Amino acid sequence: MREAGNDAAVYARQGFGAGLAPAPPFGLLIVDFVNGFADPEVFGGGNIPAAIASTRPLLALARDRGWPVAHTRIVYADDGADANVFAAKVPGMLDLTEAAPASAIVPELAPRPGELVVRKNVPSAFFATGLAPWLTQRGVRTLVVAGCVTSGCVRASVVDAMCWGFRPAVVADCVGDRAIGPHDASLFDMAQKYAEVMDYASLLGRVEG
Amino acid sequence: MREAGNDAAVYARQGFGAGLAPAPPFGLLIVDFVNGFADPEVFGGGNIPAAIASTRPLLALARDRGWPVAHTRIVYADDGADANVFAAKVPGMLDLTEAAPASAIVPELAPRPGELVVRKNVPSAFFATGLAPWLTQRGVRTLVVAGCVTSGCVRASVVDAMCWGFRPAVVADCVGDRAIGPHDASLFDMAQKYAEVMDYASLLGRVEG
Amino acid sequence: MREAGNDAAVYARQGFGAGLAPAPPFGLLIVDFVNGFADPEVFGGGNIPAAIASTRPLLALARDRGWPVAHTRIVYADDGADANVFAAKVPGMLDLTEAAPASAIVPELAPRPGELVVRKNVPSAFFATGLAPWLTQRGVRTLVVAGCVTSGCVRASVVDAMCWGFRPAVVADCVGDRAIGPHDASLFDMAQKYAEVMDYASLLGRVEG
Amino acid sequence: MREAGNDAAVYARQGFGAGLAPAPPFGLLIVDFVNGFADPEVFGGGNIPAAIASTRPLLALARDRGWPVAHTRIVYADDGADANVFAAKVPGMLDLTEAAPASAIVPELAPRPGELVVRKNVPSAFFATGLAPWLTQRGVRTLVVAGCVTSGCVRASVVDAMCWGFRPAVVADCVGDRAIGPHDASLFDMAQKYAEVMDYASLLGRVEG
Repeated sequence: MREAGNDAAVYARQGFGAGLAPAPPFGLLIVDFVNGFADPEVFGGGNIPAAIASTRPLLALARDRGWPVAHTRIVYADDGADANVFAAKVPGMLDLTEAAPASAIVPELAPRPGELVVRKNVPSAFFATGLAPWLTQRGVRTLVVAGCVTSGCVRASVVDAMCWGFRPAVVADCVGDRAIGPHDASLFDMAQKYAEVMDYASLLGRVEG
Repeated sequence: MREAGNDAAVYARQGFGAGLAPAPPFGLLIVDFVNGFADPEVFGGGNIPAAIASTRPLLALARDRGWPVAHTRIVYADDGADANVFAAKVPGMLDLTEAAPASAIVPELAPRPGELVVRKNVPSAFFATGLAPWLTQRGVRTLVVAGCVTSGCVRASVVDAMCWGFRPAVVADCVGDRAIGPHDASLFDMAQKYAEVMDYASLLGRVEG
Repeated sequence: MREAGNDAAVYARQGFGAGLAPAPPFGLLIVDFVNGFADPEVFGGGNIPAAIASTRPLLALARDRGWPVAHTRIVYADDGADANVFAAKVPGMLDLTEAAPASAIVPELAPRPGELVVRKNVPSAFFATGLAPWLTQRGVRTLVVAGCVTSGCVRASVVDAMCWGFRPAVVADCVGDRAIGPHDASLFDMAQKYAEVMDYASLLGRVEG
Repeated sequence: MREAGNDAAVYARQGFGAGLAPAPPFGLLIVDFVNGFADPEVFGGGNIPAAIASTRPLLALARDRGWPVAHTRIVYADDGADANVFAAKVPGMLDLTEAAPASAIVPELAPRPGELVVRKNVPSAFFATGLAPWLTQRGVRTLVVAGCVTSGCVRASVVDAMCWGFRPAVVADCVGDRAIGPHDASLFDMAQKYAEVMDYASLLGRVEG
């Protein structure tokens, strides 16, 4: 980001950017890694494919450790009855219906029984869904976040995770965006105000440490 | 923003950025224009003072037209009992208590009786507040948004406004941020995905037209 | 209800029970009129079948007038991944999966295209669903409510409707319960504190008047 | 309640009323034990004074054990700007302003520093407040509930507690209502569908056991 140097100085001087050291109990949230966001011809592109690949070991770690795991998909009604303001802004979203291949989670990260699949039709994984109660019921304190896009559904979910009382840990190499400018800008904002932002190697060290 | 040109092309090709023409009934939301965010020595700086000045005619318009008007303040409990994850990330927020001058709305935009003053301790004006019901009860459809900071509480409020079923109209010259990089990046994201972004002159033309 | 006389006097003396005259724009919410709640061998019984029959003309009215119409179903995930505290309290709820006949809306009130079908796994139609935004986006002010059971999902939905800024109008002959004691007690509470409670004939008079 | 016998049989046959054994970590919620609800001349009466007296040892237990403790008050804005549908139904609620003696917590249960005081203007302690995040952040799993009135703000809070993923334990002798019919009816409903309902002695045995 162009002015990251100056910007960071302003934030540092005003006391932003304190650490949120990840601590158990952990949960994992994977946001919108569906076919349509892996495909540059639909809503994908940029560094999303790389983020999907990097999320495979993260998901394996979560399963190995028995963390609660939640996946999100954007799903609109077949008849468009739930068309909303988001769909007015991005009309192609209405094509993401229950059976549309574009709305299916990518095969390499397919959910297993017992993992929560959250259907949503807005950016945040928490808005108008059962995700917060599900995590609360399971005692999660740190929510590890992967997914796409960084400047959209990931960021909105991270803001809400924090608001709902979870400590968000954004795994920088496991989130992606169709364009790198917004990706970088949102990583900066999240690190300053909402989340711990760390790469997978650091998270692994923390979990195993 | 460095890559705005390329980024915009990606978004255009994927069908983002449709218009959300503002239409009545209108409401006005002014986010966090409080002393502490007007002051570069606290949480302010950048183009926030200019945005406050530009909001004066906007507020006068809203009052003249009888729109419902809501103002937000960040307020934490005097004893810090409501310390949350946001305050863990930005510890100085805890100083914004009910009676702290830094948490008072700037004098030139002081609320009048009948206008809603929303106390919150997270970014979004809608999270854990009565704002959405208040607007719904009053029939608002388009929510005009001013305030600060663009990349923080304004953006989070705009995302939630859209989620709650309101059409957000962000007045570009009436929102400000302590740093211009995040300001520009969030204006770009909001215009692509969440809101109509327009300057005050355009909004005025629409309201009077 | 045994003490309705005395109880009502207490409420009247303290100023409860003011009217909430229904006024347009209207919306209609039909709560959980699904096969399993029509069947006394599952979760049904009492006056629910009569309430379903009485709701047919109400639904016809709403469609004729072009009101937004929303229906709710209780739906749990096939693998029980979303088992919650409600299901811990009432384990049989977990059988209400997407394809289970018991979770299907009764044929005589089957939704039409463009009507919202809300899937939920808690009592309120509003909790963790997109219902409030959907109604707000469509400008609804008075929410007419039918469904079952009066003391459970109807009541919880009416409380939330009021909280979200809608004026609830409960149609007394279009709500039912598996047992009459709780039905009567909740109608009393709703009339005192949360809603206008009226029969269908009165509502019709109001709508046509 | 008149038909409790028959009603209970219906519920038992359909599989309602499973236990929700309280288990740590615990939190305590005290709903609306304020002067105006202790006073039969305002919104009080019935068995509310007895419930307040019984809550003293419960609060002492929670403090002794270090449980997170939250208290609620109904508070409307001094200028009535936040008048809502609830206030339309019960106009006297608007008198419960920040400084009104009727809205102050009763002296014998006065909050201590570090305990959360939740201001609300609807029945549920969770609606449009920061209570759920506050409990989640502190790891609460079982939420012990006292307060008034049983058929109003207590019940609405218990339903929401369950929805938000907490296991509610309603202490029967620590909740009260202005009229006994609604009190009994709501205890029945909560025991069948939403909560463990137990007296203080049983809770104490469980906590110490």
